[in-house]
Amino acid sequence: MESCVPPGFRFHPTDEELVGYYLRKKVASKKIDLDVIRDIELYRIEPWDLQERCRIGYEEQNEWYFFSHKDKKYPTGTRTNRATMAGFWKATGRDKAVYDKSKLIGMRKTLVFYKGRAPTGQKTDWIMHEYRLESDENGLPQAST
Amino acid sequence: MESCVPPGFRFHPTDEELVGYYLRKKVASKKIDLDVIRDIELYRIEPWDLQERCRIGYEEQNEWYFFSHKDKKYPTGTRTNRATMAGFWKATGRDKAVYDKSKLIGMRKTLVFYKGRAPTGQKTDWIMHEYRLESDENGLPQAST
Repeated sequence: MESCVPPGFRFHPTDEELVGYYLRKKVASKKIDLDVIRDIELYRIEPWDLQERCRIGYEEQNEWYFFSHKDKKYPTGTRTNRATMAGFWKATGRDKAVYDKSKLIGMRKTLVFYKGRAPTGQKTDWIMHEYRLESDENGLPQAST
Repeated sequence: MESCVPPGFRFHPTDEELVGYYLRKKVASKKIDLDVIRDIELYRIEPWDLQERCRIGYEEQNEWYFFSHKDKKYPTGTRTNRATMAGFWKATGRDKAVYDKSKLIGMRKTLVFYKGRAPTGQKTDWIMHEYRLESDENGLPQAST
C-alpha cells in the first residue's frame, strides 16, 4: 500500500466509509482501490492473533480491519457461530444504524470477547464491531474492527 | 487529492513525517506526492482564516497544515516577525527535537496566538507548531500545524 498512499495518511475510516465503500464493494465482488482490509476466518483466529494478520504497513495499531464470512452454528440454521478455540464473541448493547447522509445503508453490532465457554467465560477488553449491509442484497461477508 | 488516497485515509502525519518528508522535500524544491500542504503567508492570515485556506477534502478538521516563509522583523536582522493584523504568535515552552530513528532532523517550536499587540495581548486557544530542518541546509520555509 506504500505505493499509493503518501506519507502521513492513516487508515481511520468512518462507519459510513466501511459500509458504503468497503463492505458494499466486497459483497458485490468489485475492486477495492487498495487491499487494506484482509480476508480472514474470524472463528479460527483468536483476537490477539489478529494484529499479525491485519497489519497495515509498519504503524502501531490498536484497531484492525478484516472481512470474514459468518459461520453458521448449524448447517441448516440461521444462528451464527461466534466461538473460537479459546472463547467466544458475545453481542453487547444495541446495533447502531449506519447512514449515508440520511439513507440507512447498514448496521453495526458491537461484540465483546470472552475467554472460555458460554454461558460462563471471562470477559476481556477485546471489542469487535461487526458491520452488515442493510438492504436486499444483505449478504454474508462482513467487515469488522 | 481524492484522486489518489482511497476512502478511509486521513492526514495525521507524525513530526518525523512532516520534517523528514514534507519539509525536507519542500526546502529542496522536490516533488511532493500529494499537494496536501498549502503555501500561505502566515503573517497575513489570522488563525481563524486558516481553516478555509488549508482544508483537505471535505473532512472536519481541527488541525491545519501549511508552508510559510519566515518574515523578518527588520530587513537586515535575524529576528522573526510573527505578528498578524489582529495579534501575534508567541513561543511557549522549549523547542522539541524531531528524530528519524536516532538522527536529529529538525526542531519543533510551539507558539500561542495572542490578540492585540506585544507585550500586552489576550491569550487565545490557537496553538501552532513551527517545524524547521536541523541541518546545514537549514532554510527559511517551514511547515506548521
